[in-house]
Amino acid sequence: MIDQMQGQLTAGNWSVGDRIPGEYDLAARLAVSRPAVREAIRALSHIGVLEVRRGDGTYVRSAVDPRPLLRRVERSTLRDVFELQQAYDVQAARLAARRRTQDDLLRLRALLEDRDAALDPAEFGTADAAFHLGVAEASHNALLAEAFRYFQSRLRESLSAVRLDRELSDAGPEAHRAVVDAIAARDPDAAGRAAESVIVPTLDALEALL
Amino acid sequence: MIDQMQGQLTAGNWSVGDRIPGEYDLAARLAVSRPAVREAIRALSHIGVLEVRRGDGTYVRSAVDPRPLLRRVERSTLRDVFELQQAYDVQAARLAARRRTQDDLLRLRALLEDRDAALDPAEFGTADAAFHLGVAEASHNALLAEAFRYFQSRLRESLSAVRLDRELSDAGPEAHRAVVDAIAARDPDAAGRAAESVIVPTLDALEALL
Repeated sequence: MIDQMQGQLTAGNWSVGDRIPGEYDLAARLAVSRPAVREAIRALSHIGVLEVRRGDGTYVRSAVDPRPLLRRVERSTLRDVFELQQAYDVQAARLAARRRTQDDLLRLRALLEDRDAALDPAEFGTADAAFHLGVAEASHNALLAEAFRYFQSRLRESLSAVRLDRELSDAGPEAHRAVVDAIAARDPDAAGRAAESVIVPTLDALEALL
Repeated sequence: MIDQMQGQLTAGNWSVGDRIPGEYDLAARLAVSRPAVREAIRALSHIGVLEVRRGDGTYVRSAVDPRPLLRRVERSTLRDVFELQQAYDVQAARLAARRRTQDDLLRLRALLEDRDAALDPAEFGTADAAFHLGVAEASHNALLAEAFRYFQSRLRESLSAVRLDRELSDAGPEAHRAVVDAIAARDPDAAGRAAESVIVPTLDALEALL
């Protein structure tokens, strides 16, 4: 059902902005049950393809199917995900250096202290993730922050599944502090370089392990 | 139904690797119809949360919900999406400089020629998109390439919806050639810098327009 409906989009029968037929119509036309139609519409609206407007109808929001990307995430190697995170880290640090407020800076310093003060590996993992997400949020790019959050969660889940979450080397507190210092100094190039070098030891450790 | 099932994951009742109850059981337990259960399972397996193994059962693949990211994509500003694409462009160029094969290089030179030879704006838009995707593919990071493809398609769709696809300035052929030259020279830093500067005029033009 989802595939049939996505097929209408790919084939160009439905375009962005179109109102699609109602539940009754679709169920009859495609010879499926109404609950199945309803659930497929809900699923496609959850992934941003359709939009249900109460009291009006269901509209095509985007013809771009996100599922190839989501399926690719499942089958990705750790190296591939880390390299994507590195791209986000670097861009986030560069943008944060241009846009950070005084509050952002206080928050990043506090997150850095939490990271230094962590008492065990689990606490450290959480504090480290919160620090990196903090930099992404200081970029003032909400899409970058949300993409960061999604891939970071997937990465932590994968690392814990293969029990690698505590074995990968870490760039250390000075390297992390350098990111915040460059953001404080409003120096995008230095911030980008610092953020890039933070993840290099992890990528090297990963290459050595696998 | 999808939300109820995602709720089981978020609440920790189902964990990664668990086999979830069958369709009959779930329908009875949650007091919904079987077609609705079936469609919800299909929807969650499409987004990488569940995995249906034929002749075995349905397993939890990931507890990370991608829908906040997908909903965020819908509501993103053009600036935010361009800045994400810039992050991908830079990382792709850096990685391509390290991993490109001779075939990659021939392909990139051909894509550059197609771009220069485009006869009208529509052809140019397609050739330009193909060139940037070609760099992403030469990174030999399949996740990066797929993320690039998804966000590039969304961006082109949004630009065409607001009729901005032909109004944004472009960095010009020399800037694009510089990316390929640095990849050819296996120089990641130069490739990253060249890729970053390609998108700067677009971001500036966007800021001036909006």
